[in-house]
Amino acid sequence: MSTNTIEASSPKRPPTPRNGVDTPKLFATIAVVADQPSLAEFRFRAQGRWMGGTHSRTTISGFYGVGGEMRHVEAIEADSDHPSVLCGEDRGPTPVEWLLHALAGCLTAGIANIAAARGVSLGSVACDVEGDMDLRGILGLSRDVRNGFRAIQVRFRVTGDAPAETLRKIVEQSRARSAVFDVLTNGVPVDIKMNS
Amino acid sequence: MSTNTIEASSPKRPPTPRNGVDTPKLFATIAVVADQPSLAEFRFRAQGRWMGGTHSRTTISGFYGVGGEMRHVEAIEADSDHPSVLCGEDRGPTPVEWLLHALAGCLTAGIANIAAARGVSLGSVACDVEGDMDLRGILGLSRDVRNGFRAIQVRFRVTGDAPAETLRKIVEQSRARSAVFDVLTNGVPVDIKMNS
Repeated sequence: MSTNTIEASSPKRPPTPRNGVDTPKLFATIAVVADQPSLAEFRFRAQGRWMGGTHSRTTISGFYGVGGEMRHVEAIEADSDHPSVLCGEDRGPTPVEWLLHALAGCLTAGIANIAAARGVSLGSVACDVEGDMDLRGILGLSRDVRNGFRAIQVRFRVTGDAPAETLRKIVEQSRARSAVFDVLTNGVPVDIKMNS
Repeated sequence: MSTNTIEASSPKRPPTPRNGVDTPKLFATIAVVADQPSLAEFRFRAQGRWMGGTHSRTTISGFYGVGGEMRHVEAIEADSDHPSVLCGEDRGPTPVEWLLHALAGCLTAGIANIAAARGVSLGSVACDVEGDMDLRGILGLSRDVRNGFRAIQVRFRVTGDAPAETLRKIVEQSRARSAVFDVLTNGVPVDIKMNS
């Protein structure tokens, strides 16, 4: 069994469920994937459709993983729009705010998993995520300004039955294994085509 | 008035509302920001909180922009979770699916704005977004596998009162001015701290 990701503080102590995380199942899942790497291949999906103006709606319902097609318990629809000051009708968060949401969700899930694996019971986890942007980029008003965020900052408040330094190391390990943090900081190739 | 972003096909023809986009307001907004670049400074925000296990909830309610604090018409709450096969309870999309949602929303809004500015009336815009990921990264099973997506692909279907080549150029210009595309492909510095 691999414990190199979640680094249980004492590998000899059997993991127990904690923080709402089924820690034994998590360890067992890692062991199964270690034996059969093809199970680790996932393809996540979202279907978008234009609703009018800058308003669009996305459906997230299924994905490919662990060797087959999977369905979410419930398909989710979520809206994006521009606010009034950007000539939208504010029928949902802006797309860039959804990026901040994704980051918060990924880091928070990692904190819960890693704390459980390390035998730390959490009391609460909260975060403020902020992203700074100069809109002259997307408005085409300056060649020196990028389209996206120039910086994102995340501030966590975490309570649990461990010293602050232990909690801080859990946050750091969540960052080190976060899929969203990796994509946002390192980038990923995005191929866009229009079917004719 | 600057038209360098949205490249109206005929700058001499006054822009008219189209596709649900208030095109005159959009051009006027760009002109105002060109005169007062400080209005372009935005700070977007999301507040996350842990709900138990890998489930978290984000609130998106306000942002800073055009020189002051702004509120969305409605605060939005959105959930993230891991699916059952990843030891979660599937109480919401995964954080990485939210990234795909953000990309769909940003590119679709751009298509509507740019089509309006170019005098093209859209019939429909839809897209499929997919992201491929090898979970051995986040599970810590391979040093050669990254945590995040290795590739994302977006396929658009667009109808409107213009030839396919014109529609394709609108999609391309949306990509060229997309904040989310920029962040996902080029990356952004992300600073994470825990307040003690």
